[in-house]
Amino acid sequence: MDVTVRRRQRGVTIRAVAERAGVSAMTVSNVINGAGRAGAATIEAVQAAIADLGYVPNLAARRLAKARATTVGLIYDRRTPFLDAVLVGSLRATNAHGLQLILRDGEDVARDGAERIAQDLVRSGADALLLVPPFAEQLSGSAALASLGVPLATIATGMAMPDVTTVRIDNHAAMLSITQRVIANGHRRIAYIAGPDPYSVVAARLDGFRAALARHGLSEDAALIVEHGDFDYLSGIAAAQSLLSNPDRPTAIICSSDDLAAGVIAHAQTIGLRLPRDLTVTGFDDTILASRIFPPLTVVRQPVEEMAFRATQCLIAALGKGAEQTIISDELFDHVIVERQSVAAAPEHESMKE
Amino acid sequence: MDVTVRRRQRGVTIRAVAERAGVSAMTVSNVINGAGRAGAATIEAVQAAIADLGYVPNLAARRLAKARATTVGLIYDRRTPFLDAVLVGSLRATNAHGLQLILRDGEDVARDGAERIAQDLVRSGADALLLVPPFAEQLSGSAALASLGVPLATIATGMAMPDVTTVRIDNHAAMLSITQRVIANGHRRIAYIAGPDPYSVVAARLDGFRAALARHGLSEDAALIVEHGDFDYLSGIAAAQSLLSNPDRPTAIICSSDDLAAGVIAHAQTIGLRLPRDLTVTGFDDTILASRIFPPLTVVRQPVEEMAFRATQCLIAALGKGAEQTIISDELFDHVIVERQSVAAAPEHESMKE
Repeated sequence: MDVTVRRRQRGVTIRAVAERAGVSAMTVSNVINGAGRAGAATIEAVQAAIADLGYVPNLAARRLAKARATTVGLIYDRRTPFLDAVLVGSLRATNAHGLQLILRDGEDVARDGAERIAQDLVRSGADALLLVPPFAEQLSGSAALASLGVPLATIATGMAMPDVTTVRIDNHAAMLSITQRVIANGHRRIAYIAGPDPYSVVAARLDGFRAALARHGLSEDAALIVEHGDFDYLSGIAAAQSLLSNPDRPTAIICSSDDLAAGVIAHAQTIGLRLPRDLTVTGFDDTILASRIFPPLTVVRQPVEEMAFRATQCLIAALGKGAEQTIISDELFDHVIVERQSVAAAPEHESMKE
Repeated sequence: MDVTVRRRQRGVTIRAVAERAGVSAMTVSNVINGAGRAGAATIEAVQAAIADLGYVPNLAARRLAKARATTVGLIYDRRTPFLDAVLVGSLRATNAHGLQLILRDGEDVARDGAERIAQDLVRSGADALLLVPPFAEQLSGSAALASLGVPLATIATGMAMPDVTTVRIDNHAAMLSITQRVIANGHRRIAYIAGPDPYSVVAARLDGFRAALARHGLSEDAALIVEHGDFDYLSGIAAAQSLLSNPDRPTAIICSSDDLAAGVIAHAQTIGLRLPRDLTVTGFDDTILASRIFPPLTVVRQPVEEMAFRATQCLIAALGKGAEQTIISDELFDHVIVERQSVAAAPEHESMKE
């Protein structure tokens, strides 16, 4: 497991922020804690000053002042396919330390909506925030979030972040590896279904797919790459409709989520293909879906429960320290390729062997 | 929503328990709280006296004595197909009251194992316990559990219980209803896959299936009813292997879980059937699987998140009262039949229409 650490900026005081924003230290404190009744212009000025100076409130002092049970807040999305594992992992960690876990549903919110949910969680008592994609991508770099002064951690992103601790797999290596298994089965016309843009895993995985093609001297066919959809079942059906109506259709489709793969399989069966003989499909995540659909999916497995447990542990460790000592880390967990029955030899490959 | 309430037995004191068990009141207290070092024989005698007399410790007093945050304990099973909804529902309720949720995995434990987990949760601070099936069935009537003196609630059982608050749907009516939809599509040879015995929903659902057959004058064929398996995917495959090798095979298979239905579909596709044309299949629960496999499943939907929220609310309400005022309730939520594409007209039915 690789770990990279960075330290937060230090030494900026609340007085320096107040001076720059042209308000009192009390007003800065009120804006940070969501108390008082500062106007929108004042809030904006304080947040800008906080962002400019890189001010981080001293959490340990704040907690002491509040003198109550420490609480971890989770922003989740009901559609996250591995939500059960996120909840079990984070509860295992908070249980072990006697902490409370509170959560808010962030389904379909944009950046400002995610900021409001984060502020609401902190106002409700959260001393640290655990995020699932794409909330980390939305909130990283947010002045409003920085002004809350709570440590942040996330799982399953495609990259490290300057202000959010990340616990993830190497998405590039994982997609490279599963694509190579498909190529090893003789497939040459291989399609790829990416996910939606806000998720940082999307670029890392697509790059991994391209690296596998390049490594085997296969040229990329833009018509076989579907981008800008969602990670869900309906996007999988839509992508398969487009890819499989191609007269020179692909013999394999690499999907960047299990739900996309389920949608591809549904459409392939609707048009009468026999799987996996007529079409190889792979998934990503190893959700409960992967082992229960037909054909069972060969996938990249992310150890989500362990990742959520670890990310929550990082938050708890950060709470024990003052903000100046807070460490933003980036931890890489090992992924696993789980081989099931959804990958078959390419038709041409079979005939070549005969 | 129907609610039935019963009150716990009242008026039994810790002194009466001590007298009957032939020990001191302090020893009874220690056994209840898992403190001290009473021997196995003493623990057994105290538990027997508690069970005989129907003694329930005064929780409110215990909590006051402990003077710490109130905690709800959850015994879960990692394989519960709707675990995400259970966790979100119970966390929504504990969050709303500033309580902590702690959990323990009870996968594959028998009754004594479930008792140990319940005791462990109470020792870890749980003031009330939320259970998922089959833990309520295993723990109802347990003297060891009664001796813990904490309120219990569960979701998704097939019946009310004397000592556990139940929040559930009417499983008999739900299975009757979905079976009638299948019959209305012309099916006459209808198979049924039940779940494992410890679950109280199993008998209620099977009775509902039988009632539907009787209502339409269809005779029951014992060869088409598969009992004593598990609720899982592999049990679905095994049942389908047996049912579909029958020369006069059924045209529809009613499954008592979505996972069983997924297993049936996997086997049906393996042997070359085209679904839903060649075989109608239905599920139960409406887990994420139901809408993502092919063909998408017609199912009975249980509103699990709302049920878990409500069951947790009942526990919290019980905590506000002394044990003598604790109410054991039984609440019935409405189920919904979600129609998707896994139910088709029976072959004979189609030809009749021609």
